[in-house]
Amino acid sequence: MKTNPPIRVGIIGATGYTALEAARLLQSHPGAELVAATSRADEGKPLAEIHPSLAGRCSVAIETFDAESIAAKCDVVMCCLPHGASAETVRQLVDTGVRVIDFSADFRLSSLEVYEKWYGVKHPWPERIGNVAYGMPEFFAAEIAKADVVANPGCYPTSAILPLAPLVKAGLVECDDIIIDSKSGVSGAGRSAKVATLYCETNESIAAYGVGTHRHGPEIDDLVHRIAGSEVSTIFTPHLTPMDRGILSTIYVRPKSASADAVMQCWQEAYRDHPFVSPVDHLPATKHVAGTNFVQMSVRVSGDRLVLVCVIDNLAKGASGAAIQNMNVMFGLEQTIGLN
Amino acid sequence: MKTNPPIRVGIIGATGYTALEAARLLQSHPGAELVAATSRADEGKPLAEIHPSLAGRCSVAIETFDAESIAAKCDVVMCCLPHGASAETVRQLVDTGVRVIDFSADFRLSSLEVYEKWYGVKHPWPERIGNVAYGMPEFFAAEIAKADVVANPGCYPTSAILPLAPLVKAGLVECDDIIIDSKSGVSGAGRSAKVATLYCETNESIAAYGVGTHRHGPEIDDLVHRIAGSEVSTIFTPHLTPMDRGILSTIYVRPKSASADAVMQCWQEAYRDHPFVSPVDHLPATKHVAGTNFVQMSVRVSGDRLVLVCVIDNLAKGASGAAIQNMNVMFGLEQTIGLN
Amino acid sequence: MKTNPPIRVGIIGATGYTALEAARLLQSHPGAELVAATSRADEGKPLAEIHPSLAGRCSVAIETFDAESIAAKCDVVMCCLPHGASAETVRQLVDTGVRVIDFSADFRLSSLEVYEKWYGVKHPWPERIGNVAYGMPEFFAAEIAKADVVANPGCYPTSAILPLAPLVKAGLVECDDIIIDSKSGVSGAGRSAKVATLYCETNESIAAYGVGTHRHGPEIDDLVHRIAGSEVSTIFTPHLTPMDRGILSTIYVRPKSASADAVMQCWQEAYRDHPFVSPVDHLPATKHVAGTNFVQMSVRVSGDRLVLVCVIDNLAKGASGAAIQNMNVMFGLEQTIGLN
Amino acid sequence: MKTNPPIRVGIIGATGYTALEAARLLQSHPGAELVAATSRADEGKPLAEIHPSLAGRCSVAIETFDAESIAAKCDVVMCCLPHGASAETVRQLVDTGVRVIDFSADFRLSSLEVYEKWYGVKHPWPERIGNVAYGMPEFFAAEIAKADVVANPGCYPTSAILPLAPLVKAGLVECDDIIIDSKSGVSGAGRSAKVATLYCETNESIAAYGVGTHRHGPEIDDLVHRIAGSEVSTIFTPHLTPMDRGILSTIYVRPKSASADAVMQCWQEAYRDHPFVSPVDHLPATKHVAGTNFVQMSVRVSGDRLVLVCVIDNLAKGASGAAIQNMNVMFGLEQTIGLN
Repeated sequence: MKTNPPIRVGIIGATGYTALEAARLLQSHPGAELVAATSRADEGKPLAEIHPSLAGRCSVAIETFDAESIAAKCDVVMCCLPHGASAETVRQLVDTGVRVIDFSADFRLSSLEVYEKWYGVKHPWPERIGNVAYGMPEFFAAEIAKADVVANPGCYPTSAILPLAPLVKAGLVECDDIIIDSKSGVSGAGRSAKVATLYCETNESIAAYGVGTHRHGPEIDDLVHRIAGSEVSTIFTPHLTPMDRGILSTIYVRPKSASADAVMQCWQEAYRDHPFVSPVDHLPATKHVAGTNFVQMSVRVSGDRLVLVCVIDNLAKGASGAAIQNMNVMFGLEQTIGLN
Repeated sequence: MKTNPPIRVGIIGATGYTALEAARLLQSHPGAELVAATSRADEGKPLAEIHPSLAGRCSVAIETFDAESIAAKCDVVMCCLPHGASAETVRQLVDTGVRVIDFSADFRLSSLEVYEKWYGVKHPWPERIGNVAYGMPEFFAAEIAKADVVANPGCYPTSAILPLAPLVKAGLVECDDIIIDSKSGVSGAGRSAKVATLYCETNESIAAYGVGTHRHGPEIDDLVHRIAGSEVSTIFTPHLTPMDRGILSTIYVRPKSASADAVMQCWQEAYRDHPFVSPVDHLPATKHVAGTNFVQMSVRVSGDRLVLVCVIDNLAKGASGAAIQNMNVMFGLEQTIGLN
Repeated sequence: MKTNPPIRVGIIGATGYTALEAARLLQSHPGAELVAATSRADEGKPLAEIHPSLAGRCSVAIETFDAESIAAKCDVVMCCLPHGASAETVRQLVDTGVRVIDFSADFRLSSLEVYEKWYGVKHPWPERIGNVAYGMPEFFAAEIAKADVVANPGCYPTSAILPLAPLVKAGLVECDDIIIDSKSGVSGAGRSAKVATLYCETNESIAAYGVGTHRHGPEIDDLVHRIAGSEVSTIFTPHLTPMDRGILSTIYVRPKSASADAVMQCWQEAYRDHPFVSPVDHLPATKHVAGTNFVQMSVRVSGDRLVLVCVIDNLAKGASGAAIQNMNVMFGLEQTIGLN
Repeated sequence: MKTNPPIRVGIIGATGYTALEAARLLQSHPGAELVAATSRADEGKPLAEIHPSLAGRCSVAIETFDAESIAAKCDVVMCCLPHGASAETVRQLVDTGVRVIDFSADFRLSSLEVYEKWYGVKHPWPERIGNVAYGMPEFFAAEIAKADVVANPGCYPTSAILPLAPLVKAGLVECDDIIIDSKSGVSGAGRSAKVATLYCETNESIAAYGVGTHRHGPEIDDLVHRIAGSEVSTIFTPHLTPMDRGILSTIYVRPKSASADAVMQCWQEAYRDHPFVSPVDHLPATKHVAGTNFVQMSVRVSGDRLVLVCVIDNLAKGASGAAIQNMNVMFGLEQTIGLN
């Protein structure tokens, strides 16, 4: 049922949840095919042994990473490595000429200084900082279409930038008084063995973490600035919520003069031609977008603030769905192929 | 194992979750005993049939409400009826001379006007508005000790008032720029049959509700004012979180000059002699207080704000645990009896 | 992206979980389209208002049921009504000439007597009992292809018949000593407002129900008999498990002489050409098939028994996925279209 | 509020879930006090730092294990180490004269051969095999009262032995045809960092594990034999269920001639004087006993079998609650002290 020839896709760092989600989405994508997967552990094992939900549906085996051999069989590579490690691998891949979608934070920020301060590492490929397409086709489709490297957005930033950027751009809200209170499912914490994300630690419990220190804060500020043209300064607080998937961001903004209606109208104009973003009247729940690349956002008045509520699936629009959407743009397909 | 004679307790409206929690706590309370339970439905049935977790441990049967006969066998009555209905029942009980702990919102606010505006009902006993002890022994123990009616606090207000009131009183934070983003387990929504709280609607999902309109907002403002002596104006947003129990409130305040250390010190002084309230260094999770009457609160700096995080169990300190604590105060027992 | 012209599909009784799942699957089906939806409640409302996860993706509105007008715009109708009510509606639809996939139990059994005994109702269309295709294409594809009515299988039966039928047919196991211990997610209990399926009743809890009395017991026995040619007598116990979706059936059989290897080989032969059924070496979890139409089954030796473990998604292969698979067969499409 | 002097309790291996549960229960026990805790990791840290739910309530710090110094300050030691490691530590403690409740499997079985076969280790103190009190006061209270070592029962065995033993003893059921299908919450898998028990692996999923190989199988057979006097041979299958706590065992027995009524009557007689065990008419859910030391069991007829359903809390009656109950018996207190 695949178009001929399909886009050939490789996944680097294939044992985590974003890799699994990408593999699943590729499974049903009519114009692309997973052809290679690497991981430092588990070499030689079938990918379906690492991810039993692929059993009977996927015959790819884990191989050792080698940039040349991956590039030889792939049209595009999704790199699911941690920050720091990712940039070096991306550089090797790009040197071979293959196109890359990088899931890490290594190329998202426009400032090397901000990157090195917040991530605490020396960047392995500083020349490309600020010179990579940010993978949010709602704002950067032209750059993505011709990019050799796409920086796939952070999950929290996606849930904050999409509702905020049009309002800041239109001058509807104050730029220096924005509070983003975000709640994420546990898959955002990854698949490595840690006591903190054991079932019995996170189940039946909600907790804030990284208050004032989470690295997605500067990403939000940077991107809203790049998209809207105004510097913003936000307070960002993430919370770990007992569910597999989903992010809900509750965003408190101080309107200049805007009403809730003006916000809805601004969003409707901004996203008229963007199939995945839906301003809605109801207060959306993460379940309404679970397992999809869709985004729902709504607005309410509370006292002297406007409260924006935005939901996404952190593994889909917040990671692997966005990667597929970016791939579609990179290869000239309709954005929604394989995602509706 | 009960002291002799124990405090005899009745529960009105015994089929819900707060009633069950009160019954459970009374089960292990060494100085009190559940002796009567009423409900409009289920008359004659054993209470343990309505709440199978009481099977083999509780022989009380549901009876029809009659103020006189309840008063004849009880020293104190916990009234778990909805607002509006509750005030009328409380009046009948008080007329018989029995003391009452009212779980509803009917006597919590100090202003009849605010009550009737937010609750949309005519108050059945307006003379007592502003003339009832608010059931938070951390601030009102003297009034509670001699009260005929105690207004048991709302669950969200408890999680906001306890961290906020000492800081406002000490003049550490601005009073007109307070944002309270609260997350509650589903038991807060009660035990009546509704599609919205079916397992498959709320599981694996988080959602905001009542944005700008939830009735616990004015309760928070009123009580902080009464305790701290300054008017405050807060933005309050509740969220339904996929867990049985627990409330986490993330509170954004603008410090006058206070540091995080000053906040911790202020809390430590305020709660030195209050056994259930613990300022802690770690960021607390709701699980850390689940099933207990304890409160944990912490503080972090984020940009130009202080972020306060407070966790309680909504059914315990947020409802039935507080009721037991109030009962202990009313009858001259140590506050912690039956609750540690 | 739809083929031209797509199969036009109507859904009767569109407010429940199986209807939502069918609507979602049709959304991404390249060869079919949802064109009509009915419900006794909510007439005139957009379907996306009842199911907010369809917001921005589905423009169908709820209409009043009228067999003629539904038939005029549909090629096939999925009837999601409760048993008893369904048969009468199916009859009206079939009379107009439209083809029907019935989600209820009304046409699954081959014996009118067994139906009326277990379901406690007079069957409205007894002539068709035993004369309707059972919607399990793994065994009845030829009948389904030409059927005017397809009886979509029960969720538990699917998880039991698929592992059992080939073994019984091959004579590998005793027919009179089969114990089926099944565990289902809560969505199987439907979307009507009931205390028993509130979040706080079923979360963090597992319970058996309908022990010895659940109506899927006779369906399993009947179908294994029809497929395998031998009468079987099973003990069936369902359990409500705190998860949205999924069924795991643990089946205890007494082998005649069969080893675990013989079981695997028997399954591999039986399902070689059936894309959704995978015998696997690992012990499968319901999560491995969540959100998919796939079935995984495995076998272990325990004492003198063989233990068969089979997992499905109750809403997908256990209901709406099977319905799409049946529709594909009825209209000559590949079984996997829209389901992989 | 503690009696004077309280029983002084030490916990060895204090970082896991059973240790936390024991610490919590001791917190509210009127006649016992936690005075020491050891762990190989985390020496010197406050126990409340490892278990934040103890914050503000417990001042014990983790110390290095030394049998002499622990014995000097404790009347009884709860040993929460893994099997193999535990026996050696228990021996050292007993040599000092302190009494020990061992949570591991090292002294539960009566046969050294069975132990070494199933646990795959050489037993460090084989002389005591078969010569230790099994910590189920419902059957072994006299031995426990005077024991120097009590083998605290396994969680699954507790849920199977309690319903089975009286029926086997009374000759009501066949001994060679017993199937035990058990479902446990995830806390049973412990608190060590493993991918398999991460939230996102076990949430929204149920799976069988250890089919035919789980070590609690022989414990069940051994204890039913010791209690009932007849050899039994059971098929035991455990399942990992997405909830923190609770075990439900569904047990299929072939009655000799017994009716469901005869089973209830047998249980009622067996457990008349045992406050924690309740035969009940309703089908019990694990939630009905969550957080308590109670056991509920019920029976139904299904075909030619009787289906027994038994629920416990795996951390309470299945581990730490039983340990407290045993401690009460060892020190001559009422069994229910601190547990009701």
